[in-house]
Amino acid sequence: MAEYIAPIKRLIEEFRKLPGVGAKTAVRYAFATLSLNESEIEQFADAIIGAKRDIRVCPVCCGLTASEGKCEICSDENRDSSVICVVESAKDIMVMEKVRSYRGMYHVLGGVLSPIDNISSDDLNIKELVARIEEGAVKEVIVATNPTPSGDTTAAYIARILEPYGTEVSRLAYGIPVGGDIEYADEITLYRAMEGRKYYGN
Amino acid sequence: MAEYIAPIKRLIEEFRKLPGVGAKTAVRYAFATLSLNESEIEQFADAIIGAKRDIRVCPVCCGLTASEGKCEICSDENRDSSVICVVESAKDIMVMEKVRSYRGMYHVLGGVLSPIDNISSDDLNIKELVARIEEGAVKEVIVATNPTPSGDTTAAYIARILEPYGTEVSRLAYGIPVGGDIEYADEITLYRAMEGRKYYGN
Repeated sequence: MAEYIAPIKRLIEEFRKLPGVGAKTAVRYAFATLSLNESEIEQFADAIIGAKRDIRVCPVCCGLTASEGKCEICSDENRDSSVICVVESAKDIMVMEKVRSYRGMYHVLGGVLSPIDNISSDDLNIKELVARIEEGAVKEVIVATNPTPSGDTTAAYIARILEPYGTEVSRLAYGIPVGGDIEYADEITLYRAMEGRKYYGN
Repeated sequence: MAEYIAPIKRLIEEFRKLPGVGAKTAVRYAFATLSLNESEIEQFADAIIGAKRDIRVCPVCCGLTASEGKCEICSDENRDSSVICVVESAKDIMVMEKVRSYRGMYHVLGGVLSPIDNISSDDLNIKELVARIEEGAVKEVIVATNPTPSGDTTAAYIARILEPYGTEVSRLAYGIPVGGDIEYADEITLYRAMEGRKYYGN
């Protein structure tokens, strides 16, 4: 026996599909799953199936929702609908929500422009964003794509596409992470932090 | 919205039950699962259910098997049934199988003695081991429990229990890992490595 028995092997292969999971971690997860009791196993499997079955895409922001119509944020009338924060993926909404002072809306792109991966603007929810801008109530779009070349390209593309509408388009600031140590910051981050420096007294 | 929608939250909680998975990793896994298509989702869920449904405990070694009777190793007549390697858990069998020169049998304890966790010898597959020894064909038992205090205690306990049968009981050697650097070895490992030193010419 140089191999795991089939049901274990199959489970290991499934866990390996998760991001960042290598062979050893997948084995650990598989054996941890084996040690669950029958009702826990069913609960686990059902949570996975439920993720597909019970989740819909919000017709406004393209984020995820458990309800039939608009998502919780889009239907919250206490939020400021004149600002839209554009994010790459639905999970980034929760990341941005940590900034408790932000009370605007969101728009999920569903990725970033990437010619290498064959992802063009048609593959992203850009026309849905344009449609929201065309309604006329949006004053500012904050692009919060990741600080990667693709994220930058996508942000610049959105700025260009929205130019005719006169909507202000901004991008999250680059700089040194708060609480970080400049000793460990890479040179590009330091360069960007220099470039974006803030003067006192303004 | 300070919380994920219910189906996502549920999935995150399930992933958090896996060993070493914290909040952020669970979120990553949950969203990776969401991005699977429907048939992949079903395959994943079924692999989890299958792990419980299709796996049985081998009546001889207490390891895991996909078949009804004895496991693959226990029914392999080319293996040496006069040696039993005792391991803590079923997954350790695969770890030991990497030592390709070992062609003996295995016995899975299902844990180690641990008064703190209220695990006594009755909770382990020790009487099953004794029953195999009583059959008389086993000449040596190699205890391969982990190099922890509990693992050591369990090994010593097994040695004592098997004493009346005259079976040789050995324990895996402690020492410096091959390819390691003694600079990074802790003092207990170094002490054990000194203690277990091998003389040339023997």
